[in-house]
Amino acid sequence: MGDCGETEQGAYLDSLLNLESLRQSLVRQEDTIIFSLIERSRYPINSRLYDQSAAPSLLRFFLEESEAVQAKAGRYTSPEENAFFPDSLPHPMLPPPKHKPVLHPSGACININDKIISHYLETLVPLVATKGDDGNYAATAATDLACLQALSRRIHFGKFVAEVKFRDSPQDYTPAILAKDKEGLMKLLTFESVEEAIKKRVEKKAMVFGQDVGLQENGSRYKVKPALVSQMYGDWLIPLTKFVQVEYLLRRLD
Amino acid sequence: MGDCGETEQGAYLDSLLNLESLRQSLVRQEDTIIFSLIERSRYPINSRLYDQSAAPSLLRFFLEESEAVQAKAGRYTSPEENAFFPDSLPHPMLPPPKHKPVLHPSGACININDKIISHYLETLVPLVATKGDDGNYAATAATDLACLQALSRRIHFGKFVAEVKFRDSPQDYTPAILAKDKEGLMKLLTFESVEEAIKKRVEKKAMVFGQDVGLQENGSRYKVKPALVSQMYGDWLIPLTKFVQVEYLLRRLD
Repeated sequence: MGDCGETEQGAYLDSLLNLESLRQSLVRQEDTIIFSLIERSRYPINSRLYDQSAAPSLLRFFLEESEAVQAKAGRYTSPEENAFFPDSLPHPMLPPPKHKPVLHPSGACININDKIISHYLETLVPLVATKGDDGNYAATAATDLACLQALSRRIHFGKFVAEVKFRDSPQDYTPAILAKDKEGLMKLLTFESVEEAIKKRVEKKAMVFGQDVGLQENGSRYKVKPALVSQMYGDWLIPLTKFVQVEYLLRRLD
Repeated sequence: MGDCGETEQGAYLDSLLNLESLRQSLVRQEDTIIFSLIERSRYPINSRLYDQSAAPSLLRFFLEESEAVQAKAGRYTSPEENAFFPDSLPHPMLPPPKHKPVLHPSGACININDKIISHYLETLVPLVATKGDDGNYAATAATDLACLQALSRRIHFGKFVAEVKFRDSPQDYTPAILAKDKEGLMKLLTFESVEEAIKKRVEKKAMVFGQDVGLQENGSRYKVKPALVSQMYGDWLIPLTKFVQVEYLLRRLD
């Protein structure tokens, strides 16, 4: 199995440097993000999970311990994954895959998970979950972990997108990078029609995946508001992804 | 918050003894099961995760350690949850909720997760995942955990269904229980038209949730075969749920 596995893993890593496979992955990740938000909506807010009066919160405990388990299983050897609490992760049990780094080293370590978790807890959870407390804290925390990891993976994908765009036409980006011109880079990375198409598509996905599917046709009650998902993408997720891209490019010539 | 929280948790527990809320929960759990299978299908089989040649497998390590974290967060204080490796779980950090047990004690501890994990690994994974190995073992294991927990919750829900049915008409079940008549109990619990409706509904859900949603209409390529989901329900999941119901009822007069 060994050799064959290595080659296939190489193909997987190559796919992270191909604009069309990145696009497909981003589209597929939309499903994951929407599924995870729908799953979070099964539980009420359960605010005791987030209570920091006896700091740290139960959620924080849960995330740190879960990341430790996943680190041992090798999650953070993948360039796609960024831990929320990266400071004291245990080593993976299996030797990490040997391959040429996909990303430029100084940009690879960009991690804006602190921004992601704040927005998720302060803004998204109260919009997605109903008021109340059913006591199912561990099950709720597991859905929070899934949401956070899906959002984090999507947003940090900006690193791969930036790397590929830079490799495709370094001459377009180099002057702005050298001038540390964040605004100029942001302009180069912004395609309004593409962003509008994404917002429309995720709204449609939230309608499709969040409907009550029965044997009869039914009205339009959605588990997570489609407009909320579209707005989350437009106001927060796409801008943060572009923020990651700009930060990555700024370090690309280090 | 305390008192109010307790009351709401009471309402949640009451809902586990109400046939209409159980039905709604089972319908909602279909979405969770299908989402989780679709998420598993994002990764190839990744058989190194299941390799027991250096026993135990990486998956087993991952499941045991994840269950330990979830146990500390209180997952297994809920009568809905049954651990895959229940023998050495740590205690929950928060005091478990004080409430009258929902289930009859000798039936409450029924746990057929060994059957569930065998079928999942031997039959479902090879049907849902494509051949290959992309090295993303930890991410794959996380999707396995989600599938296993969703299937386990659904199948062990048979305990609540059996409890409610028994409470509603003990006279119908008592003779068969006293006679240890498994076949007779199975007959009392079987409603073919209901089972057919479930199979049709989950097939439809797999079509809806597993389609590629784009801005244009597209052909019918599904991430997990709808017929597979319907067959899984008909041949395995519904029979196992009824097995749990029969086992529960046999102990109901202990």
